[in-house]
Amino acid sequence: MPIFKPISENEAKGKVKEIYEEIKKVRQITEVPNFWKTLANNSETLERTWTSLQQVMKKGALDSVFKELIYVAVSITNGCEYCIKSHSIAAKKKGATDEMLNEMIAVVGMANETNRLVEGYQVEVDSFLK
Amino acid sequence: MPIFKPISENEAKGKVKEIYEEIKKVRQITEVPNFWKTLANNSETLERTWTSLQQVMKKGALDSVFKELIYVAVSITNGCEYCIKSHSIAAKKKGATDEMLNEMIAVVGMANETNRLVEGYQVEVDSFLK
Amino acid sequence: MPIFKPISENEAKGKVKEIYEEIKKVRQITEVPNFWKTLANNSETLERTWTSLQQVMKKGALDSVFKELIYVAVSITNGCEYCIKSHSIAAKKKGATDEMLNEMIAVVGMANETNRLVEGYQVEVDSFLK
Amino acid sequence: MPIFKPISENEAKGKVKEIYEEIKKVRQITEVPNFWKTLANNSETLERTWTSLQQVMKKGALDSVFKELIYVAVSITNGCEYCIKSHSIAAKKKGATDEMLNEMIAVVGMANETNRLVEGYQVEVDSFLK
Amino acid sequence: MPIFKPISENEAKGKVKEIYEEIKKVRQITEVPNFWKTLANNSETLERTWTSLQQVMKKGALDSVFKELIYVAVSITNGCEYCIKSHSIAAKKKGATDEMLNEMIAVVGMANETNRLVEGYQVEVDSFLK
Amino acid sequence: MPIFKPISENEAKGKVKEIYEEIKKVRQITEVPNFWKTLANNSETLERTWTSLQQVMKKGALDSVFKELIYVAVSITNGCEYCIKSHSIAAKKKGATDEMLNEMIAVVGMANETNRLVEGYQVEVDSFLK
Repeated sequence: MPIFKPISENEAKGKVKEIYEEIKKVRQITEVPNFWKTLANNSETLERTWTSLQQVMKKGALDSVFKELIYVAVSITNGCEYCIKSHSIAAKKKGATDEMLNEMIAVVGMANETNRLVEGYQVEVDSFLK
Repeated sequence: MPIFKPISENEAKGKVKEIYEEIKKVRQITEVPNFWKTLANNSETLERTWTSLQQVMKKGALDSVFKELIYVAVSITNGCEYCIKSHSIAAKKKGATDEMLNEMIAVVGMANETNRLVEGYQVEVDSFLK
Repeated sequence: MPIFKPISENEAKGKVKEIYEEIKKVRQITEVPNFWKTLANNSETLERTWTSLQQVMKKGALDSVFKELIYVAVSITNGCEYCIKSHSIAAKKKGATDEMLNEMIAVVGMANETNRLVEGYQVEVDSFLK
Repeated sequence: MPIFKPISENEAKGKVKEIYEEIKKVRQITEVPNFWKTLANNSETLERTWTSLQQVMKKGALDSVFKELIYVAVSITNGCEYCIKSHSIAAKKKGATDEMLNEMIAVVGMANETNRLVEGYQVEVDSFLK
Repeated sequence: MPIFKPISENEAKGKVKEIYEEIKKVRQITEVPNFWKTLANNSETLERTWTSLQQVMKKGALDSVFKELIYVAVSITNGCEYCIKSHSIAAKKKGATDEMLNEMIAVVGMANETNRLVEGYQVEVDSFLK
Repeated sequence: MPIFKPISENEAKGKVKEIYEEIKKVRQITEVPNFWKTLANNSETLERTWTSLQQVMKKGALDSVFKELIYVAVSITNGCEYCIKSHSIAAKKKGATDEMLNEMIAVVGMANETNRLVEGYQVEVDSFLK
């Protein structure tokens, strides 16, 4: 009894239908993923998120494969299963190797450890960092 | 009245002194940062963390500058001020530009947003992700 | 092999049985939810939580439907599936519409994004906020 | 030695200057807050965040004062000091009373407690929630 | 410009005054800490939290010193500075040694690391754990 | 379609095989848990984590059963299901009783609540804590 069900491609109308088509075209996929089909319960959220995500994730000073890895790193820290799965696969499609994913996970683990060592010991900011 | 004070370079002895010297040499700095001086309250934690961090952050399939950026991305998600400051600077020293930092922060923000959209809507894992 | 199993209504005795009856009466439900049946493994935790929750969630300066929405907002941020599901439904029972839930989720997503923009950029508190 | 400094109103040019003017006009304030002045280091992030935030926080099925309270609830859960301060004040400006803030904080505390009771006991989703 | 100021001992009346006296007596301190003086902005939250905390933190199957260490472990994971400081000191008053605190922090760091390794690799629950 | 599959005991070679044998011997178990079999996708992470975890979790100023309880407390706060399950069972094997686990969970819940009361009210550090 989920509160919101995914809006199927058949049910989609107007703005939602347009964005579905764009997603399939831009991502070169044949099926709209559940993430977008569920966001479609609020067409404003769907449109804003799709637009923002494309802007943020596009190649810039950082390659888009690195951006996906950062995305997964955040999702691991937050423990979001769907996000980890879908963006790990996106990273692989864009060229990330298993070695890169393994190393990213190792950094995420270590950063989470040292973040808490810093908090636990209440480390003061060094004068040369101020 | 912090529970643990940093162990100054003058106070350091034995194993701790050795690691302090190694940190300064490897990092090419003249002063041991507060993080290491505070961990020195437990020489096992100091040694293990220093060794692990070097192994995890060394250049591999991912460049060490990119590893620093992932490190900062995690620290932002956890809200660890010292960690964000010290590793942003480390990233810059290793070649990260302001544009790269700006884009990394944008990805971190967006990933934190979509992580919660996924949780809020309880998005189900797509059959093609299983 | 969960460490703690729910205490069924048949197994409940004394204080636990009393609270089970009160829960069903106050909430106007015919079955005690798993949350309470599992807390019953520690009757002090069961009683304290039931009493505290009623005090905190009762109508006051804020409507109880709005309190449920805040509750869900926190649960989304923490990624607690059971909590999101049960309190989304509670919110709907108390009058929350799908539009309200959609907007609440959008705010939760956006707040999680901007929280990290603030952390990433280490924004200083404005003088007019001090 | 922060990585990114706020862009002052005098330094602002083009798109950034326009958004600064809009922020002051829409929010009816005479000074651009540090949040926006810091985001201005990346004009895309500034524009996207300003546009998105207005869309998400506008009055809809939920009053904008309630949206601010949800925003603060998330920020408390994430421990983002700047966000808690600035949006508590925004909530008060929009009509939130001290009683409403007190009750919101109480719900946030309680939700964080019960979220962890659920996780600790690994409570299974009730059949009537599935 | 904090939203809520601590209620000083002189300003305290009725129920709040009573609880202030009880806190000083039970804790054997001469000054009410800021935590309680700030909660006093909502006398219900003050009373409920004081009562609950005493119940939860009292000696039981676990020593109260060990409960304080668990409390600090959670506070480190959440990055709550006030909570870490006040409960580290409480733990020391109740008999925790520096060695115990050092080891607790090491466990907190390691648990935060392995938690993310588990999430990153999406480790499946072993059949013998089900 | 998980990115990384567990490396079975039959597939394990060299360093990985050695560590598998050591895990089974030290832990007195007949089957390597999925956590270690999945980490084996990166033999460096496997070795480093196994070595670090043994060092951190060994009996010291704190009993190893208490260390397991702290470990679970962190895992509950992070919402890591696998970690909660496996370390709750480890704690029980090392002598933790159901009463101890119940009390630990109660402390974790309460600490998460008060952490957020502190953040929500922005409680200032007492002068006697500085």
